[in-house]
Amino acid sequence: MKLVHDPIHGHIELDEFAVRLVDTPEFQRLRRITQLGMAFLAYPSARHTRFEHSLGTFYLAKRIAEHNPEIEEGAVHAALLHDLGHYPFSHTLEALYPRHEENTKWLIRHGEIGDVLREQYSLREFIELFKHPLVSGDIDADRMDYLVRDAYYTGVAYGLVDLDRLVRNLYYDGERLVVEEKGVMAAQSLLLARSMMYPTVYGHHVSRIASAMLVKAVELEGLSLEEIRTMDEVDLVARLRRSEKDEVRELVKAMDDRRLYKRVLYTNRDPGEGAVEELRGELEAEFGHLVLVDYPPKPKFEEKNAFVETENGLRRLSEVSPLVRSLVELKDAHWRWGIYARADVREWVERFLKTFLD
Amino acid sequence: MKLVHDPIHGHIELDEFAVRLVDTPEFQRLRRITQLGMAFLAYPSARHTRFEHSLGTFYLAKRIAEHNPEIEEGAVHAALLHDLGHYPFSHTLEALYPRHEENTKWLIRHGEIGDVLREQYSLREFIELFKHPLVSGDIDADRMDYLVRDAYYTGVAYGLVDLDRLVRNLYYDGERLVVEEKGVMAAQSLLLARSMMYPTVYGHHVSRIASAMLVKAVELEGLSLEEIRTMDEVDLVARLRRSEKDEVRELVKAMDDRRLYKRVLYTNRDPGEGAVEELRGELEAEFGHLVLVDYPPKPKFEEKNAFVETENGLRRLSEVSPLVRSLVELKDAHWRWGIYARADVREWVERFLKTFLD
Amino acid sequence: MKLVHDPIHGHIELDEFAVRLVDTPEFQRLRRITQLGMAFLAYPSARHTRFEHSLGTFYLAKRIAEHNPEIEEGAVHAALLHDLGHYPFSHTLEALYPRHEENTKWLIRHGEIGDVLREQYSLREFIELFKHPLVSGDIDADRMDYLVRDAYYTGVAYGLVDLDRLVRNLYYDGERLVVEEKGVMAAQSLLLARSMMYPTVYGHHVSRIASAMLVKAVELEGLSLEEIRTMDEVDLVARLRRSEKDEVRELVKAMDDRRLYKRVLYTNRDPGEGAVEELRGELEAEFGHLVLVDYPPKPKFEEKNAFVETENGLRRLSEVSPLVRSLVELKDAHWRWGIYARADVREWVERFLKTFLD
Amino acid sequence: MKLVHDPIHGHIELDEFAVRLVDTPEFQRLRRITQLGMAFLAYPSARHTRFEHSLGTFYLAKRIAEHNPEIEEGAVHAALLHDLGHYPFSHTLEALYPRHEENTKWLIRHGEIGDVLREQYSLREFIELFKHPLVSGDIDADRMDYLVRDAYYTGVAYGLVDLDRLVRNLYYDGERLVVEEKGVMAAQSLLLARSMMYPTVYGHHVSRIASAMLVKAVELEGLSLEEIRTMDEVDLVARLRRSEKDEVRELVKAMDDRRLYKRVLYTNRDPGEGAVEELRGELEAEFGHLVLVDYPPKPKFEEKNAFVETENGLRRLSEVSPLVRSLVELKDAHWRWGIYARADVREWVERFLKTFLD
Repeated sequence: MKLVHDPIHGHIELDEFAVRLVDTPEFQRLRRITQLGMAFLAYPSARHTRFEHSLGTFYLAKRIAEHNPEIEEGAVHAALLHDLGHYPFSHTLEALYPRHEENTKWLIRHGEIGDVLREQYSLREFIELFKHPLVSGDIDADRMDYLVRDAYYTGVAYGLVDLDRLVRNLYYDGERLVVEEKGVMAAQSLLLARSMMYPTVYGHHVSRIASAMLVKAVELEGLSLEEIRTMDEVDLVARLRRSEKDEVRELVKAMDDRRLYKRVLYTNRDPGEGAVEELRGELEAEFGHLVLVDYPPKPKFEEKNAFVETENGLRRLSEVSPLVRSLVELKDAHWRWGIYARADVREWVERFLKTFLD
Repeated sequence: MKLVHDPIHGHIELDEFAVRLVDTPEFQRLRRITQLGMAFLAYPSARHTRFEHSLGTFYLAKRIAEHNPEIEEGAVHAALLHDLGHYPFSHTLEALYPRHEENTKWLIRHGEIGDVLREQYSLREFIELFKHPLVSGDIDADRMDYLVRDAYYTGVAYGLVDLDRLVRNLYYDGERLVVEEKGVMAAQSLLLARSMMYPTVYGHHVSRIASAMLVKAVELEGLSLEEIRTMDEVDLVARLRRSEKDEVRELVKAMDDRRLYKRVLYTNRDPGEGAVEELRGELEAEFGHLVLVDYPPKPKFEEKNAFVETENGLRRLSEVSPLVRSLVELKDAHWRWGIYARADVREWVERFLKTFLD
Repeated sequence: MKLVHDPIHGHIELDEFAVRLVDTPEFQRLRRITQLGMAFLAYPSARHTRFEHSLGTFYLAKRIAEHNPEIEEGAVHAALLHDLGHYPFSHTLEALYPRHEENTKWLIRHGEIGDVLREQYSLREFIELFKHPLVSGDIDADRMDYLVRDAYYTGVAYGLVDLDRLVRNLYYDGERLVVEEKGVMAAQSLLLARSMMYPTVYGHHVSRIASAMLVKAVELEGLSLEEIRTMDEVDLVARLRRSEKDEVRELVKAMDDRRLYKRVLYTNRDPGEGAVEELRGELEAEFGHLVLVDYPPKPKFEEKNAFVETENGLRRLSEVSPLVRSLVELKDAHWRWGIYARADVREWVERFLKTFLD
Repeated sequence: MKLVHDPIHGHIELDEFAVRLVDTPEFQRLRRITQLGMAFLAYPSARHTRFEHSLGTFYLAKRIAEHNPEIEEGAVHAALLHDLGHYPFSHTLEALYPRHEENTKWLIRHGEIGDVLREQYSLREFIELFKHPLVSGDIDADRMDYLVRDAYYTGVAYGLVDLDRLVRNLYYDGERLVVEEKGVMAAQSLLLARSMMYPTVYGHHVSRIASAMLVKAVELEGLSLEEIRTMDEVDLVARLRRSEKDEVRELVKAMDDRRLYKRVLYTNRDPGEGAVEELRGELEAEFGHLVLVDYPPKPKFEEKNAFVETENGLRRLSEVSPLVRSLVELKDAHWRWGIYARADVREWVERFLKTFLD
């Protein structure tokens, strides 16, 4: 048993096997993967890492499991490792590489951590546990931890959730985590918190511009999946700084000095993927790395896994809570796509766009 | 200049005139009027009073006025006094007497505090300032203070609002407090917080049962408006304890000992006011004070005063925020009416109801 | 099992027997005994009660007992009831009546709560448990709760203690609660917090003046011990307001309106009890209730029960921590005695004192 | 005017000139210098940087200056830049290079930031302002920010200070920041907080071991002052990982994987610098980089700048507060020196030490 001090949960107790998982190079790498990627350029204090978040998710998963003895221990250890495969700057580089979940599996199969796991689990069965509702539902330990943690480190007020009440009122029916009646308000507040954290923090335009710059730099550098798999943020930034390509060095220097590209366009009117891709081609041909097109996928909010127990049996939370229903409906409200340009070429790009769009 | 220590706002600075207002018997009486009435029987720690809330409202009003020099000083002093007329246990007794706003005016016209006010203001003009958007809007200093304060004292997580951001992004256009674009998320979170505090705290069934008991006791005691106007909670409870009527003493003893009536019916199906009143008559005839009918008005959520500034000019917040729109639509979702009975007669009442409803 | 929401500890779980104790009139009375007595005239938000504090003490006692299975259940229930006998406004009236611990025993022997206790305990043995180190040490559940709680409700920063770390590092050796090495810093911070809360909150001069006024009013009213034993604050204040003596009604009105006596003298130079008592006699003869002499006992800080485990065996905390040692040495540093007078006679009293002291 | 969101101070307002200072590469570099160096290996969440701390120090300095109009604006801008010269991992490498204050001056004289400063200040005069009591006293904006911030990010309870009360009760007498009487308790709590943060956080043995490993790696790598001056943590770690020396790569890998050296000796018995240096020589000769000797200087706690205003004129805080006096006396109480060895050679080192010490 080992205790880790944590500002969100107080003291996190790690069992002996969890300590051994944490003590592998793969897990320690998470200390050097920031939770919110480039968001620190909008919220300077957001320097927390996937390491703390992984411990916090483990803590909450364990507390939920204590109330639900039928949840197997493996699912709690899977909660600890669910973010193992994140690339440097977390989600940012998923625009270029397979989703981090794929890399989690790869690291488990090829790293020291797999050797530890094999002592207690079949790797194949363990990997299946990442689909467990403890960490893959709409109301799960992962989301409960990151919303509260991200709010704490950014200082933004929108992430407060009554975790204690929620943890006490979740039961596992063998398939899902179901919210009991006394936890409905807390569950609703979790989903509301998420919907407010998105535009405020996760989708802050400063963070998006810097992310687009990083993606471009990595793309230009041409890093292979094999290279990126095990890199931490030191490896990646150092590599870009030493690049042989002027454009890459220029981009990373601009990020370091926070001399960010400016918005030429930022809108929720969607011309369709085809039109955007055509435009991207034109802009690249004309301006190269000086202009970036940022066209993110529409947010998914299927809310498929949030079930509550009512006197009339299991119901989707969206049926019970009109507020949550409106969240589903408005899922696109904060979606934006953008075109960003280096400050000194912004006007040219604006003129080019006008011509192009005419 | 005087400083008052406050857990919500740190130190509240009172100007000299505010100190003189606070130092009157009418204002000091607010120290003995609890903010949340009978809610302390559900949330034991909710013992804060209208006194602290009034100071907190003054603090926020003053900060908003600092950003908006055209707001007159009188409006800030009106914010300090906006709750002066609350009866013991705050809103509870408004079921029997005129709304507290009327009593505020009466106390100002007849109390020492009026003498102080007259030195600087015309009373008639001052009283008009209670309609100022600083304290009578959907986004105002009053609500900003009470939501955060009530959350702090109850320990409920749903009242967190980014007050600083909101205060910095309100401007007064001569008629309304308008939310600037950077404050929209904070304004939205204020209204969401309110919508979650209602079912969780303000409308908690324990609080409603105890309130219904208190209303019945005061009604039986037959206290006149003249008597209740200046009472504090000590006066009222002591008076009820000394009542000549057994029923009154029994009710107040039951509240003191937290031996509360039980719910026989608690539903959001509304049979209409006529039917409920008929039933109330029947139940009173049969059971007297042993059964209470609690049929509150439907909540108003007109959201008529929340305006935001957008690139397309002033818009209602509900136009801009689908979440707020859904709040307007679901305003009745948590409305309930109830029938409560002393524990030992509950079964009889249930039988009676069945007969009556058949 | 019942859950009570609490801002300090989150959710407090009450076992079935604890619920039955809480549901007695004697325990419910604590809802109407404020924790800090007259301190709310210095810190308006300090309206919390012995009820919440008793639940919080129970919570911490239970957590300590969970780590120390040899602690008997009775000691945890004694923690719940340790403050049962407090008079209105807590410690204030102990100047006139036996200490509240005596009244706790009396209420247990004569109240409904005794009937509940007898089902599980011998009253005589139970009463012995109030001496258990869980609630009667220098590092105990009582103090741990009240320091953090009083800091929260006053908004004063000096009461923060790492309760979780302390609870995890206390063990019961059959006689004492001993602090393990990892808890020494937290234990030290508890004692430091106490030493800073005393001058800032507990001994604030506004609170002391108001307390002296209340003591005088109760003394003049001549309330017997039998009368005060079961009174709550409503009973006491209502009784004083209805007094037949003008002086009593005047004093209670002055407290209600916060028109407090002023300091004529406030010093840590101690002329000795004899001289003070002589002066008190002279002042009373000359000014009656218009002048109050407030000569409190010197604080005890014997720190006799705080033991820590070191590699060299058990040691007193004061041996291990020079800071704590200095606390013992400076225990009188903040002691003051005072003479307070109604504002309009202050000058006369000053003149009288000069003559008298010459 | 620009606003930066900060979890400690809410929103920090930057004036236009401050924005220009912040927007230089030298200041942006601070985003990549962690505040607590290797302490994150003991407190995983301690990933905050000198960037946020610098902004927070500026904020507090500005608030103090608002109360003290005679403080020149330059001193507030100096507060913003007081930590500009920190090397990677903050104080850690000051064992090898000149103190960071020297590097601050060098960067100002040689960096872009100097060009900005020259527009408004004489560099020579500006550099003198780093000695201003705003940032170089025992009670100053620097310390006020870092104690509260470090407590927040580590989750340790010992750093709470009533900053608002302290800021309101500091006045500048042309030479010093003097604490007014109402701020004495807050000032005392600041010094107590520091004294408890030292052993708990700043001097945590895990942090010290990792720091000793880093110092050794940098020493072996032979980085010149010219090289280290402008490095951030990415530069340094990447450089060490690419080292041509096996020992350096081994050390940095061990830090990355948190496979830390173990304590062979850890004691407050001081054999004197000569003896320790002799021992260091012997151990290096025998074990090379596998054994590290960590012999830090004794802490200074001269408390020379903390003055308070009393009715008897200016006094040192230590004269007024026995607790602070005891802090001065016990300044060495937590001093330790240590010998750390790679786990696999620990036993050999122990045997060697025994022989050597015999």
